[in-house]
Amino acid sequence: MNKYRLEALSDGVFAILMTLLVIELHVPEIFEKLNNLELFNALIALIPKFSAFFLSFIVITMMWVSHHTFMAKFTRVVNRRAVILNAFLLAAVSLIPFSANLIGTYTYNQTAIIWYGLNIILVGIMGNILWYYVTGNDELRNKDFKPKELLQARIRTSLNPLFALLGILVSFAVPTLSYILYAFPVVFNLIPGSLDMLEKAFGIDLERIAEERLK
Amino acid sequence: MNKYRLEALSDGVFAILMTLLVIELHVPEIFEKLNNLELFNALIALIPKFSAFFLSFIVITMMWVSHHTFMAKFTRVVNRRAVILNAFLLAAVSLIPFSANLIGTYTYNQTAIIWYGLNIILVGIMGNILWYYVTGNDELRNKDFKPKELLQARIRTSLNPLFALLGILVSFAVPTLSYILYAFPVVFNLIPGSLDMLEKAFGIDLERIAEERLK
Amino acid sequence: MNKYRLEALSDGVFAILMTLLVIELHVPEIFEKLNNLELFNALIALIPKFSAFFLSFIVITMMWVSHHTFMAKFTRVVNRRAVILNAFLLAAVSLIPFSANLIGTYTYNQTAIIWYGLNIILVGIMGNILWYYVTGNDELRNKDFKPKELLQARIRTSLNPLFALLGILVSFAVPTLSYILYAFPVVFNLIPGSLDMLEKAFGIDLERIAEERLK
Amino acid sequence: MNKYRLEALSDGVFAILMTLLVIELHVPEIFEKLNNLELFNALIALIPKFSAFFLSFIVITMMWVSHHTFMAKFTRVVNRRAVILNAFLLAAVSLIPFSANLIGTYTYNQTAIIWYGLNIILVGIMGNILWYYVTGNDELRNKDFKPKELLQARIRTSLNPLFALLGILVSFAVPTLSYILYAFPVVFNLIPGSLDMLEKAFGIDLERIAEERLK
Repeated sequence: MNKYRLEALSDGVFAILMTLLVIELHVPEIFEKLNNLELFNALIALIPKFSAFFLSFIVITMMWVSHHTFMAKFTRVVNRRAVILNAFLLAAVSLIPFSANLIGTYTYNQTAIIWYGLNIILVGIMGNILWYYVTGNDELRNKDFKPKELLQARIRTSLNPLFALLGILVSFAVPTLSYILYAFPVVFNLIPGSLDMLEKAFGIDLERIAEERLK
Repeated sequence: MNKYRLEALSDGVFAILMTLLVIELHVPEIFEKLNNLELFNALIALIPKFSAFFLSFIVITMMWVSHHTFMAKFTRVVNRRAVILNAFLLAAVSLIPFSANLIGTYTYNQTAIIWYGLNIILVGIMGNILWYYVTGNDELRNKDFKPKELLQARIRTSLNPLFALLGILVSFAVPTLSYILYAFPVVFNLIPGSLDMLEKAFGIDLERIAEERLK
Repeated sequence: MNKYRLEALSDGVFAILMTLLVIELHVPEIFEKLNNLELFNALIALIPKFSAFFLSFIVITMMWVSHHTFMAKFTRVVNRRAVILNAFLLAAVSLIPFSANLIGTYTYNQTAIIWYGLNIILVGIMGNILWYYVTGNDELRNKDFKPKELLQARIRTSLNPLFALLGILVSFAVPTLSYILYAFPVVFNLIPGSLDMLEKAFGIDLERIAEERLK
Repeated sequence: MNKYRLEALSDGVFAILMTLLVIELHVPEIFEKLNNLELFNALIALIPKFSAFFLSFIVITMMWVSHHTFMAKFTRVVNRRAVILNAFLLAAVSLIPFSANLIGTYTYNQTAIIWYGLNIILVGIMGNILWYYVTGNDELRNKDFKPKELLQARIRTSLNPLFALLGILVSFAVPTLSYILYAFPVVFNLIPGSLDMLEKAFGIDLERIAEERLK
């Protein structure tokens, strides 16, 4: 099966999920119409919802970037199993609008915060299952990539669930700090060459590790 | 008419239907805000809805796989009639989010269970009408495929409605067992070489049957 | 500007509109849960909504076919004005889910029936403005098509608004008959060679008319 | 990273946002069913909502045209940062359906009018950040375009936020006049050669300015 229609389907799902987020932003409609100041206050009261919307928009974008990288660089063709595993991944991503709405409504509620983190982790697990299956399958995987590139892509993809796990642990101490941890991978990816800097700072030789692990 | 824009339109519809499923997952919003434990319980109470969401996500994915296979392998071009028949198929698939919501709300209600099965069967019928029309039309069908491949694709496509029919019958005895039957074709397709195993187990020679029936 | 991204955008809009139709099919949720029979009756009561859904799904499909034909056969490139005129057309099509919901709720109300017809006519007008602009513009239009083909496409595209107008007129006598007239163009397009039959039946020579009008 | 899947994702988001606008057009459903005249009046009462829908549909189209132009003409490839900046832009556009609904509900409320203008300005800022980043980056930008074309595209893209700013200022005097200013860039773009006319009318030599500024 060629991979382009699967990419198209996945792009569609990602695009819709991003925009579904906005559906839950309801215009304040009270029985009596609000005047200028009242409407202003009603909009200010929506700030938690807007923040949840924005955080989730960016989180889904990072998931899309990861999906895009794996499909474009490391996948040659797909088979029926890869399509089903991809569906599991998309199903996990599809829960993000619900989870976004949950933290938008229950911003300071630990259950909501943990739920949101679990959703990110679920996406991370499903993504890893899919990509390990594809890149470990000689028929499906693309042959001409450097081992280091694959390792880097895997590290980037694992940042989201790892920081989500950290966020969940932190929620037992300072719940709102969790949000910063959930958002961190986006900031990390915005800094150019962030992964190389990390490599140097900790004296890790990704190239060597990659060669050893993937050969 | 070339087939690519019809594929794109259909992909769009499939992608949207998958994600529409999530719209019906409403955040529990009670008059008084819930505390941690109450919100946890409210989320637990949503498990039937989540299950209906997940089942339907995977069911729509299988329908998409079937659509993809027929369009990619067996279709060369489409005409106005194929487009309309394809619209009938998509309309049937479009009812799945409604049906998913129905079994999410009325999980143990036999009417809901039968309705869900009927929806799968309707999709099966519409799909068969479309694919018999296309693969039976010398102008539209692709010429270079093996008869066995077509037969295999038809068998796989028929698994969903067949097990849905079984699920409906079973609902008169053990309603919840129906869900397992509705989900079965997905499991079957996840097992690599499952169709070949079946072929050997029952001593059927699909190749010979295909040659006889399609020549 | 090349036409392919405009096609993709339009396909997206058409696909979403088709599936938005289903959003208005709400699962009957009464305060007390319904038993098997009550749920069955509640579903039966939804038949007008299902019919409006199905009619509109097919009507939007016909609009898509018309859009597809003009873009694929008669358009070479697009410019900023064509994009804006295309947006007017899409905006008119975007009202269909609202109108579908209107006739689904007020099936026997003449205001709703006329509104639905007006929506189809609005789409027809916007479509004609766009296609006359494109096919009348030497920079935008494709050069290698037969005049007869263009005339045929225009006739097919005009069937929807013409029968909608007829449906509106008929609504003053027998409101429900209007629905049959709204659906007629779909049936007409399902019959193979229907336009040729009409040509012969009425002794019209489309080829000659086309040559005269478009030269 | 090649740019085509980013275009596809963005097209998906734009298409969905256009159609999401219609979701907020709710069919008047009163406890007692309305008769012909009552339904007619209920539809007339929806005119502010229809106007907000139509204005926003066209505003989003203009944003799409701007996005399309920059991607097609001035962008060669994209990187991870461009994808994230593009996500910021899409997130800003994603708020339009909410803002459209706001002015549809609170048509004469200055807070709503200013909010709508601010949304357009936010899109303008995000768009400018993205396009300045891409066109200022030698790896990402396309090389073969005329400086004048880039300047023209930038002017067109800045029309929306500039007139939105004007609309906000005007809202302190005549709130409803703001809407005309918000809609003006669309009218401007519908007039063929409008930018050239402006160039001549004010005796500006865009070509020279562009060469100076961009060399």
